[in-house]
Amino acid sequence: MGERAIQVGLLGLGTVGTGVVSIVERHQNELAHQAGRPVAIKKALVKQIDKVRGSEVNGVELTTNPEDILDDPDLDVVIEVMGGVSETKQLLEKAIRQKKHIVTANKDLMAEWGASLLALAAEQGVDVYYEASVAGGIPILRTITEGLSADRITKMMGIVNGTTNYILTKMSQENRSYEDVLKEAQELGFAEADPTADVEGLDAARKMAILATLGFSAPVQLSDVAVKGITNVSGKDLHFCEQLGLTMKLIGVAKRDEGRLEVCVEPTLLPSDHPLASVQNEYNAVFVHGEAVGETMFYGPGAGSLPTATAVVSDLVSVMKNMRHRVNGYAAMKPLYEAVFKEEQEKQSQFFIRLHVEDRTGTFSSITSLFARYDVSFEKLLQLPLEEEQMAEIVIITHVTNRAVYKELMEELEQLDVVKTIASSYRVEGGKG
Amino acid sequence: MGERAIQVGLLGLGTVGTGVVSIVERHQNELAHQAGRPVAIKKALVKQIDKVRGSEVNGVELTTNPEDILDDPDLDVVIEVMGGVSETKQLLEKAIRQKKHIVTANKDLMAEWGASLLALAAEQGVDVYYEASVAGGIPILRTITEGLSADRITKMMGIVNGTTNYILTKMSQENRSYEDVLKEAQELGFAEADPTADVEGLDAARKMAILATLGFSAPVQLSDVAVKGITNVSGKDLHFCEQLGLTMKLIGVAKRDEGRLEVCVEPTLLPSDHPLASVQNEYNAVFVHGEAVGETMFYGPGAGSLPTATAVVSDLVSVMKNMRHRVNGYAAMKPLYEAVFKEEQEKQSQFFIRLHVEDRTGTFSSITSLFARYDVSFEKLLQLPLEEEQMAEIVIITHVTNRAVYKELMEELEQLDVVKTIASSYRVEGGKG
Repeated sequence: MGERAIQVGLLGLGTVGTGVVSIVERHQNELAHQAGRPVAIKKALVKQIDKVRGSEVNGVELTTNPEDILDDPDLDVVIEVMGGVSETKQLLEKAIRQKKHIVTANKDLMAEWGASLLALAAEQGVDVYYEASVAGGIPILRTITEGLSADRITKMMGIVNGTTNYILTKMSQENRSYEDVLKEAQELGFAEADPTADVEGLDAARKMAILATLGFSAPVQLSDVAVKGITNVSGKDLHFCEQLGLTMKLIGVAKRDEGRLEVCVEPTLLPSDHPLASVQNEYNAVFVHGEAVGETMFYGPGAGSLPTATAVVSDLVSVMKNMRHRVNGYAAMKPLYEAVFKEEQEKQSQFFIRLHVEDRTGTFSSITSLFARYDVSFEKLLQLPLEEEQMAEIVIITHVTNRAVYKELMEELEQLDVVKTIASSYRVEGGKG
Repeated sequence: MGERAIQVGLLGLGTVGTGVVSIVERHQNELAHQAGRPVAIKKALVKQIDKVRGSEVNGVELTTNPEDILDDPDLDVVIEVMGGVSETKQLLEKAIRQKKHIVTANKDLMAEWGASLLALAAEQGVDVYYEASVAGGIPILRTITEGLSADRITKMMGIVNGTTNYILTKMSQENRSYEDVLKEAQELGFAEADPTADVEGLDAARKMAILATLGFSAPVQLSDVAVKGITNVSGKDLHFCEQLGLTMKLIGVAKRDEGRLEVCVEPTLLPSDHPLASVQNEYNAVFVHGEAVGETMFYGPGAGSLPTATAVVSDLVSVMKNMRHRVNGYAAMKPLYEAVFKEEQEKQSQFFIRLHVEDRTGTFSSITSLFARYDVSFEKLLQLPLEEEQMAEIVIITHVTNRAVYKELMEELEQLDVVKTIASSYRVEGGKG
C-alpha cells in the first residue's frame, strides 16, 4: 500500500474521545485492513492542556485552539465529541468547507442542524456520519438506512435514553421513589447533575427526530415530537402496571400510516412479554416494524464511553472506505418525502387511567356511561378501596381510541362529581387493541 | 437521471423470488431514490413455465433455460433464490464471468463455496452479497462487517434456525413430545418433509460458519463447526431446565480467545433471563459481544418469504448504490487472519448432566468424589426419586470446566457401579460460571 496514514483530528478528549483514541490504537491492524492504509489520531482540541490524562493519549498533540485542527491541511477527518450546539456547528461548518470529513456523536447538534450540515457536506463532497448520536453502541442508523433499505418502515419504538430507563427499572424492581433513584443515578454517573434533558424526554425526542427522518425519509424536527417526561411517574403507577401485566418504559414512538406521521416520546405501558419490556437499566433498544420484514429489534448499550467510541470509529471506517474508493459525499440521502403529521383525531392508541373516586352507589355507572357516550370501551378495569374513607381507586385500560376523543373525555371525566382526581394517565402500546 | 433501469434476472421464482418481485414493484419509488435510477425484474428462471402464479409476476419473462439469463447482456444483476449447491455454483460462476453482480440467499452454497465465489467476484470486479443467507430478515452480516467494524468481536451466540426454535418453544410451553411438535411443524410449513438439515443442526452450523468467518475475519468452514442436533431432547430435560431457571435453545456459539476459535452448534441451556431465552417460535436472534461495545443483540424473523426477500432487495440496493458510484467488487473483504481452533482442553463451559442412579447409601459420595477427583465443582444439584424402585434421578450443573476433562469425567461416570445411565448432558452458557 505505502500510502500515508489517514489523519484524524478530535474535537474533544473526554471519555468518548479517549475511547476513540484507544480503540484506534488497539485495533490498528483490523482498521488498516479495512481502510487499505493505516489511521492515526494526530491532534485533539481540549479545554485544558495540562489536565492529567491516561497514557493512551500520549501520541496525540493537544491544542486549545480549534484553528490548529480546522486549518491543518494534513487532517482528513474531524471527529466531534465535544458536545454543544451553536459553536460546535460553526466549527463543523468550517471543517466541512476545508474538505474534512466529519464524524459526530452529537444528537443535539444533528437533531437541530443535521439537515443543514448534510446539505453543506454534499455540496462540498465530504462525508458526515453520526451513528453514535442515537442509541450508542447499537448500529441502528445503518440498520435503518441499509439493512432495511428495501422495506417500508411503518413503526419504530425505542428505548433511546439510558438514564430514564435506569431510573424506571430501579423504581419498579426495588420499589423506590423517583427522587431516590435519580439521586443514586447521579452519584453513579448514569444521570447528569442537571438531569432535565433526560428526565423531561428531550434527549429521547432528539433521537426520535433523527430516527424518524431516516426511517421515513422525511424531515422530522425536534419541534415535531410530542414530549412528556418521567418526572411525574409514581411508584403506585408502577405497582398497578405490574398487577395488570404491563411494564412502563419511556418510549419514543414514530409511526407512519398512509404517509402521515406521528412522533412522540412519553412514559408508555407495554405488555410485560413485549421485547422492549425486558430491556433493563441503562440499555437501549429499538423495535422496528417494516411492511415486509415484520418485527425486528436491536438491543445494546445506549451510552458509555467505549460503546459510543465504537460507533464513532465504525463511522470513521466508513469514511476511510469511501476515501479508498473515492466516493465521499454520497452517504447522506436527501429525504424523499415531505413530513406530513397526523391530527390528534388520527392518533390511535390505548390508554391507562388511574382515578380517585367517591366510593358510593352510582359512581361506577356515571363513569362507565361517560365512557360509553364517547364510545370508548374498556379492556381492563380494577377497583380498589383507598385508605381514605369512602374513597376508591379505579384503574382503567381502554381499547383503542384517538387522542382527540380521549382529551375531551378526560376533560369531562375531571368535571364529574364523583371523580376526585385523575391520578395519572399513560399511553399503552403493543396491547391487543 | 434519465439512465436506463437497472435490470435484474432471478434464478428461482418460489415464495422468496415472488416476494422479491413484489417488493421491487411496491417500493419502486424508494428504490429508485436510493439507486439514482429505476430497477426492474426482467426475467426469471423457473422449472415449469405453465405453473399457476400470482399476478405480481405478470411483468416478468419466464424461462426454463439458465442461458437466457446468464447470457443476456442487458441484465446487470442476478438474484439467486433457487437453492442447491453444485449446479447453482456453476451458474453463479458463469454469471460472475459475464460481469453480473450476484445477490444470493443460499447459505448452503455460501458456507461451502463462499470464499471461492467471493474471490472470483473480486477478480471480475463484481459484487456478491448474501445477507439473506443468515437470519432472514435480520441484517446481521452488515451489522458485523460495518456497524461493529471498529470493534473486536469476541463472541457470537445465535438462534439461527427457526424450525428448531419453533419445536423447542412448543415442546417447552405446551409440554409436548419432539415427534408430536415436529409433525405439527411439518404440517404448518415450519419444517420440511425431510427435516434432517434443521433438526440435526447442519443448517445452523452453516450459518455459524458464515458468521464466524465475517465476525472473526478468519475462514471458518462447515467442517470446523462441532454440531449436535435436537433429536434427543426430551420433555424431561426441558422440565428440569425450567425448575433450575434455565431455558433450552439450539444455540450456535462462536468464540475467540486470544486468537483461538471455537465454533459449535448444540442444544444449550441459558439462564431464563438471558436475552436469547425469550426468543420464541420461528424467530431468530444473534447476540454479539464486542471487546469495546459489550453486549448487543439483533432480533427478527429468521425466515419467511417477505423477510428473506427484504434482505435480498436490501442487498440489491447495495449493488445499485455501488453501480451508481462505480465501486462494485470491493464489498467482500478477504479474511485478515488464519483460522486457528481451540483444542478440547481450551474449550471452557458449564455443563448440565442428568443421571439415573441407584438410590442407596454411598451413591452420592461416590459421584461427588469422582467429580472432586477431576476438580469439577457443582453450581447446582437436584436429587429426586424415580418411579422405578430404589432408583433416583440426579441433575447436576457444574461450574466451568473444559471439554477434555469433561469427556474423561463422563466416561468414568458411566462406568460407576451406582450409575445406571447418563440420561442427558448439555452445555450451559451465560451462567455465573
